[in-house]
Amino acid sequence: MTYRNFKEKVFEIIQPSAEGKLASRLFDLFIMFLILVSVVSVFIMTFDEIPRTILRCLREAECATILVFTVEYVLRIWTADLLYPELSPWRARLKFVCSPMAVIDLVAILPFYLPMLVSINLVGIRALRLVRLLRIFKLNRYSDAFLSIMEVFRGKIREIMVSLFIVFLLLIVASLFIFYAEHDAQPQQFSNAFSGLWWAVATLTTVGYGDIYPVTPIGRILGAIIALLGIGMAAVPTGILSAGFVELLEKRKKKEEEDSAGQDKPEEKGFFDGF
Amino acid sequence: MTYRNFKEKVFEIIQPSAEGKLASRLFDLFIMFLILVSVVSVFIMTFDEIPRTILRCLREAECATILVFTVEYVLRIWTADLLYPELSPWRARLKFVCSPMAVIDLVAILPFYLPMLVSINLVGIRALRLVRLLRIFKLNRYSDAFLSIMEVFRGKIREIMVSLFIVFLLLIVASLFIFYAEHDAQPQQFSNAFSGLWWAVATLTTVGYGDIYPVTPIGRILGAIIALLGIGMAAVPTGILSAGFVELLEKRKKKEEEDSAGQDKPEEKGFFDGF
Amino acid sequence: MTYRNFKEKVFEIIQPSAEGKLASRLFDLFIMFLILVSVVSVFIMTFDEIPRTILRCLREAECATILVFTVEYVLRIWTADLLYPELSPWRARLKFVCSPMAVIDLVAILPFYLPMLVSINLVGIRALRLVRLLRIFKLNRYSDAFLSIMEVFRGKIREIMVSLFIVFLLLIVASLFIFYAEHDAQPQQFSNAFSGLWWAVATLTTVGYGDIYPVTPIGRILGAIIALLGIGMAAVPTGILSAGFVELLEKRKKKEEEDSAGQDKPEEKGFFDGF
Amino acid sequence: MTYRNFKEKVFEIIQPSAEGKLASRLFDLFIMFLILVSVVSVFIMTFDEIPRTILRCLREAECATILVFTVEYVLRIWTADLLYPELSPWRARLKFVCSPMAVIDLVAILPFYLPMLVSINLVGIRALRLVRLLRIFKLNRYSDAFLSIMEVFRGKIREIMVSLFIVFLLLIVASLFIFYAEHDAQPQQFSNAFSGLWWAVATLTTVGYGDIYPVTPIGRILGAIIALLGIGMAAVPTGILSAGFVELLEKRKKKEEEDSAGQDKPEEKGFFDGF
Repeated sequence: MTYRNFKEKVFEIIQPSAEGKLASRLFDLFIMFLILVSVVSVFIMTFDEIPRTILRCLREAECATILVFTVEYVLRIWTADLLYPELSPWRARLKFVCSPMAVIDLVAILPFYLPMLVSINLVGIRALRLVRLLRIFKLNRYSDAFLSIMEVFRGKIREIMVSLFIVFLLLIVASLFIFYAEHDAQPQQFSNAFSGLWWAVATLTTVGYGDIYPVTPIGRILGAIIALLGIGMAAVPTGILSAGFVELLEKRKKKEEEDSAGQDKPEEKGFFDGF
Repeated sequence: MTYRNFKEKVFEIIQPSAEGKLASRLFDLFIMFLILVSVVSVFIMTFDEIPRTILRCLREAECATILVFTVEYVLRIWTADLLYPELSPWRARLKFVCSPMAVIDLVAILPFYLPMLVSINLVGIRALRLVRLLRIFKLNRYSDAFLSIMEVFRGKIREIMVSLFIVFLLLIVASLFIFYAEHDAQPQQFSNAFSGLWWAVATLTTVGYGDIYPVTPIGRILGAIIALLGIGMAAVPTGILSAGFVELLEKRKKKEEEDSAGQDKPEEKGFFDGF
Repeated sequence: MTYRNFKEKVFEIIQPSAEGKLASRLFDLFIMFLILVSVVSVFIMTFDEIPRTILRCLREAECATILVFTVEYVLRIWTADLLYPELSPWRARLKFVCSPMAVIDLVAILPFYLPMLVSINLVGIRALRLVRLLRIFKLNRYSDAFLSIMEVFRGKIREIMVSLFIVFLLLIVASLFIFYAEHDAQPQQFSNAFSGLWWAVATLTTVGYGDIYPVTPIGRILGAIIALLGIGMAAVPTGILSAGFVELLEKRKKKEEEDSAGQDKPEEKGFFDGF
Repeated sequence: MTYRNFKEKVFEIIQPSAEGKLASRLFDLFIMFLILVSVVSVFIMTFDEIPRTILRCLREAECATILVFTVEYVLRIWTADLLYPELSPWRARLKFVCSPMAVIDLVAILPFYLPMLVSINLVGIRALRLVRLLRIFKLNRYSDAFLSIMEVFRGKIREIMVSLFIVFLLLIVASLFIFYAEHDAQPQQFSNAFSGLWWAVATLTTVGYGDIYPVTPIGRILGAIIALLGIGMAAVPTGILSAGFVELLEKRKKKEEEDSAGQDKPEEKGFFDGF
């Protein structure tokens, strides 16, 4: 096996798998497993008292994970010239290092090698590692579905912003009204308008924890109105998105009819470059 | 710079910004910032004990805000003849002063100049100032989205009224039934049918605070039915609005196909006159 | 004014109003006001201690209401031959008396005249009076919207039944699972599988009163799955109804295109006969 | 009546009923009644103290149910050659015995005849019997609706997976954030990140039991954001399914237009073979 062949093989494996390539898919699963382990270990680390043996286990898993991620990162840099064959090797590597996904990869492993920083913001960095989960979308089967959801959101962003704005207006008005209605009856619960805001959010989203609720007749009438408006508040964005998805389907059908010749969609491919 | 030029410049700035005009957009942002400050200060004023320094701060911010709003209001009256160029200057000003948005602007600043009224209903008036937030819709990018949501609501108003009516019918029946089912078991919680109504609203909207809930078998069966109907109650208006948004999209597509020549939509422009 | 003219006038007034007929509309509003009064009085009657004066008020309002409803019922029988002009007067009256709406009208007033029955099931009968609220739909403006909601429900009844069935299956499985997961940890809360069923309904519908909830890890995992499925459970009927409303709009558009000549829809008129 | 005729008669009766065949439909109803009885008895068996008489009743009902199910199972094996007329009798019986529905039928009755196993996992097996409820779908009227819901889910599986994945990502991030925001203020409630996860599920699905909720300002801001995102989280799958149902309707309409000649859909029939 020549050096070139070996490099191409490595590149093929660490690239998010096209369907059917077993080695590449196994590598993806292995990385996803490591991400999962590292998420679970972040969760376990939040316990107040962790037995020593488990702590040692977690630390060793951490070291192993970081090692694999480091090797993966280095291999990705090494094979970057195969990702952007039109660029010179060093420019390809620079382009890869600056891509958002590579920056996240680096940020996820860097703190381990900077002991002074570790104790300070390890957790924040670990949370960033979650972004690596996005890698799943590279699997060809799902990236399409993800892109269509994104497309609908992008197409309807103004309608969504407007309905969000109406929600905020409603929240502000409701929280002031409920405060003046309930403050005298429950000075402890509705101590200020921010408590009213917390109640208004819990009611309009129909979460309703029950830690704070109106008891006076006028407060309950207000509460009933806000709760009923909550149904409407959910209905508006749902209606907008439904129409958006219907629109998308029709647009695609039309496109298919117009030109059955496959389009390459070069921009969308670019979106995932160096991922 | 002549008087006429200066006036046009001022008019351009205080008019809600078209895209690209920097000074006008900065002015909009400044007014929105003042509205935000004034909303936050209304919220802070509801605290029982406010430190003196913060109180002084808030009062000074209040004075400054009122001053700016007054100057803006006067400038809008002054430049009203540019808003309605087809009218004589004084008729234009009168028309502007009587427009709903100008009335709100006046109501928002008036109480400050009527010290006797201040202590009585300052808060209610301040709430009105929230309406000024609607100004955001003037920004060309969003007014369109707002209008399409409004159009769908207007087109489906009867279906929405009918489903609201069914909700009310359901609430009344449910509250009477739950009262008779639970009154003997929980005479304190379900003291009368109005308590039942409060429970019915909390259940049908799926808020479920947990301050009041059935405990008897028959009450729980009723509760389960109402809760399941609650899903349906949310599904009906959502379905109506979804269809409304789909309809709107098709109507627009048809319009575009029929005449690609741009329409000026003079009525919609009129909707925001003097805003 | 002849006898015939007077009868036609009376018939016109007591028939649910077409738009524009003032007397008929005022009569409708008056009946709706009486229904509202009688609903509110049913609610007030549930208070444990009612002051004597209010009790007398309510009783007098009750008498007046019953009197008006009785007169209306008699007038409707009297004018039934104008409702079904194709039948002989007595057949028309018989047909009217047997129509569902006339039966409800009768049931709503009958108990008042049967003193022995009054104390027994007055409340149940009063609840029936709520059905009279349906009269509102007769107002031409809304009956159309009501019929289209009904049409969508009728068209999608099988899909709705199937999703309801899946909900029931899910509820049964979830309640058994949660019972076995939580019974040992909370024997008081999850005393039997019916408690589990109550919890499952509150969770799947996202009501979440908070009177009963899992505390064990396995129970919480189950709870999380059920709660997430709850979102899906709401999404399925909403999607079905959305598609139903879209379908209805398209069907109507097609109909309009096919024959612009107005159709009489005789069956739909029949639906409200004698209402 | 010959042997062959009798066998065909039996086969006709135990096969899920086509509309109009009374005996077959009665048999279906009888089996459904037995399933219902057996579900209710599983529920009643979870009570801590069951009176002796009821216990005896339940046991006898259990015996009778098992007997009927056994006879039904044997009859189904016996008539399997009529179900697959193209196979030899013994191959037909083998094919039937291996079909998923027959396996469930067997698993539901087997434990009764294996006394040693009864006390161990009777309940788990009983739960399986619920699957027999699926038999309802065989009734021609509903199987179509069930298949169309399934078709929409299958067609939208990727979009649903992606939105589920986004929910999981959101849950993980939210639970870590809320843990760090609330742990110091409520060390008992938010003892570790798994408590945060439980809170995040209850909030994002808008269940909101109220057993755990943020109390610090930063925690409440986080809670408000998650609760508002919860509305969006419900809107996305609803929008996807709505579009799916609309798509399905259009596809069917197109099919009908293309070929009005009825299609036999042999695969769909196969789906329910031996059910």
